[in-house]
Amino acid sequence: MSAAVQETVATEWASAAAASVVARCDTLAALTETPGRITRVYLSPEHARANDTVRAWMQDAGLDTWQDAAGNLHGRVSGPTPDAPVLLLGSHLDTVVDAGRYDGVVGVLMAVEVVARLARDHGALPFALEVVAFSDEEGTRFGKALLGSSAVAGVWDDAWWDLCDADGTTLRAAFTAFGLDPERVHDAAVDPARLVGYLEAHIEQGPYLEQADQALGLVTSIASARRFTVQAVGEARHAGGTPYERRHDALLAAAEAALAVERICRAEQHIGTVGTMAVEPGAVNVVPGLATFAVDLRGEFDEGRDRVWDAIVAAFHEIGERRGVVVTPTEVHRAPAVFCAPRLMDAVRAGIVATGEPAPLELFSRAGHDAMSLGLVTDVAMLFLRNPDGISHHPDEFVAAPDVALGLDALTAAVERLARDHVPAGDGGDA
Amino acid sequence: MSAAVQETVATEWASAAAASVVARCDTLAALTETPGRITRVYLSPEHARANDTVRAWMQDAGLDTWQDAAGNLHGRVSGPTPDAPVLLLGSHLDTVVDAGRYDGVVGVLMAVEVVARLARDHGALPFALEVVAFSDEEGTRFGKALLGSSAVAGVWDDAWWDLCDADGTTLRAAFTAFGLDPERVHDAAVDPARLVGYLEAHIEQGPYLEQADQALGLVTSIASARRFTVQAVGEARHAGGTPYERRHDALLAAAEAALAVERICRAEQHIGTVGTMAVEPGAVNVVPGLATFAVDLRGEFDEGRDRVWDAIVAAFHEIGERRGVVVTPTEVHRAPAVFCAPRLMDAVRAGIVATGEPAPLELFSRAGHDAMSLGLVTDVAMLFLRNPDGISHHPDEFVAAPDVALGLDALTAAVERLARDHVPAGDGGDA
Repeated sequence: MSAAVQETVATEWASAAAASVVARCDTLAALTETPGRITRVYLSPEHARANDTVRAWMQDAGLDTWQDAAGNLHGRVSGPTPDAPVLLLGSHLDTVVDAGRYDGVVGVLMAVEVVARLARDHGALPFALEVVAFSDEEGTRFGKALLGSSAVAGVWDDAWWDLCDADGTTLRAAFTAFGLDPERVHDAAVDPARLVGYLEAHIEQGPYLEQADQALGLVTSIASARRFTVQAVGEARHAGGTPYERRHDALLAAAEAALAVERICRAEQHIGTVGTMAVEPGAVNVVPGLATFAVDLRGEFDEGRDRVWDAIVAAFHEIGERRGVVVTPTEVHRAPAVFCAPRLMDAVRAGIVATGEPAPLELFSRAGHDAMSLGLVTDVAMLFLRNPDGISHHPDEFVAAPDVALGLDALTAAVERLARDHVPAGDGGDA
Repeated sequence: MSAAVQETVATEWASAAAASVVARCDTLAALTETPGRITRVYLSPEHARANDTVRAWMQDAGLDTWQDAAGNLHGRVSGPTPDAPVLLLGSHLDTVVDAGRYDGVVGVLMAVEVVARLARDHGALPFALEVVAFSDEEGTRFGKALLGSSAVAGVWDDAWWDLCDADGTTLRAAFTAFGLDPERVHDAAVDPARLVGYLEAHIEQGPYLEQADQALGLVTSIASARRFTVQAVGEARHAGGTPYERRHDALLAAAEAALAVERICRAEQHIGTVGTMAVEPGAVNVVPGLATFAVDLRGEFDEGRDRVWDAIVAAFHEIGERRGVVVTPTEVHRAPAVFCAPRLMDAVRAGIVATGEPAPLELFSRAGHDAMSLGLVTDVAMLFLRNPDGISHHPDEFVAAPDVALGLDALTAAVERLARDHVPAGDGGDA
């Protein structure tokens, strides 16, 4: 109500760049397989068109570009020497089904602006700057998240080749159809020894920054996550003729299971979600014989996450026994909690404070990010942008241009700080 | 354990005819849109092929055949005069998804055998005999059951033309594509004043005859039924970033709703089933914003059924209020309980007893049947065949050939009894 709160104001450059970033988010939103909604998945025609579009923007900004062996798009500004270390910045261009327009995309486009600006202002920094627009973070098409960044981190698992999309197309076939060579996917891996680290800007996808009335946040760690596909196998029977005591209703078992996920996670302060549910045979007058659903489980620490999952499995078992339905979870994704590197966090914190913002809210990310893959092989840090009402993975997802502008200033200052403090390898970094 | 139970043995004719009926059920099972599973829906290419196949069998048996304006197949043996009354016998040729091979089909094929035999043995009965192979009983394609028999009963509702299948094809467009003229559907209606009644043989689709150790059962009434499509509208949100207190999870509301249907129906001795469940956007990492499911509710009497539904709606409302999810049911089908005619039941009971079986178990049918539509305009009765373990709407659905044979003898004797007792219209039937 009072006008006492002083708004932090971004630089003129950042305000103009933020306007461009937001306009480009709108442009990319039009690259979708579903007119009127945003759905852009790995190795799709829209993926190719998004890479083409962002490649042109990278080239306009003076970056050298290439698409790697896993369909990720890279744009680079060289360091002082061809073998200089590399600071990666980026996020992803793929989306969930019926997505918002900022998740991932805004971080890629901010990185392009920041790298272009730093190259213009400083010439070569002590390290190369490389923007990576990751090709698959959400896992929408093949169920397995972080495929693009896993290739870059060099943790690609050949067991994934047989993953199928909803049409039965394997990951291997989709690679070939996209013009990629499955045999060469490991060429996408970077050499960790050459990396300075990885910085990612992203919308928060939660309400905590808005609650704290702060535009920017500093991520301390990224949630420990596991994902499962669960099959409940009962028996399809006539809906009229089959008395309850003879039923083995797969959907009712799955319904109880979904509610158990919620109940246990709430009690244990974790986040568990059942986001899909399919029933067979799926007729109004047939007791369901099969129900298939997905469980997404997240927590701050791996141990807690696993303890909660064990409790969920025990609940599934009890439900299945009682109903004569066999409930079988299959793990499809597991990511350990990734802790951000204090060295990079210090730079991001300093970058945020340099904009005039107060000391940032420090929070762990409940959402997964490409930084999880990179965190397996190098130091990572993340800057969060305020996300009104925490709405994400939804058409109403939003980030305000002034917040993007502050984020651009903060990210620029963070990289400048890293450049200033950079100690070349072998130059007594342990002093 | 003892060998004291005397098995009733069918006539030689019936045993041979039953073997043919069972073999023909196998032949029709191959007419499916899904290889390896049986799915044959209204106005599909398989519907046309099934009509062609059964038409040939009818013609071989000496019946005059035609397809009516709603795609039902008819086969007739004339009465003593062109304007003689007509006794209808039949059942349906369409199936649920991944169906068994006897539901409906066995009743059609038994009727063909019985009519052919009676024509051979007796020449013209005092009424014509007409087998109807109904084109849509299950409602698999358009959600609305009993379309075929509704046309024959003259209760077709023009509001149905805009019903859509899963591909968005309207019932009207499907009619045209099948070669039928929607404008002429009312031509399929029979004149109730000319009907003697309708007899249907069908597998029980429940375990009660098996429990009673009887091959044949006499139906007293057909369940009162209502069907609803229910939409639960919440809000799609990011699965990681959205705290539970900010969620409006459509799937969890639907899960509670499905369990409420079960809980209330069990307590009130009704049968309620949630046979379908679809979720949007349907991604592993998105809180569901929309869940759509079907409710099938059945009871012996209309009043009880409606009282139970009111309790279910109240539960849906409470669930929706608590979760911030709008739960809206839309009625898609309503059928009053149909009571079988004592006159026809007496004939069927006498037919069963004439085989040497004991006085049959009398039971109400929890499943819906074509007789529900016919029962709106004429007298109906039904003969049930024992259905091992009550498995129906499932590939394991079974009926034993010896039970079919007894059913053939019983149905033949029932029609003979009706013929013997027949009082021509205007000949003092009220005496």
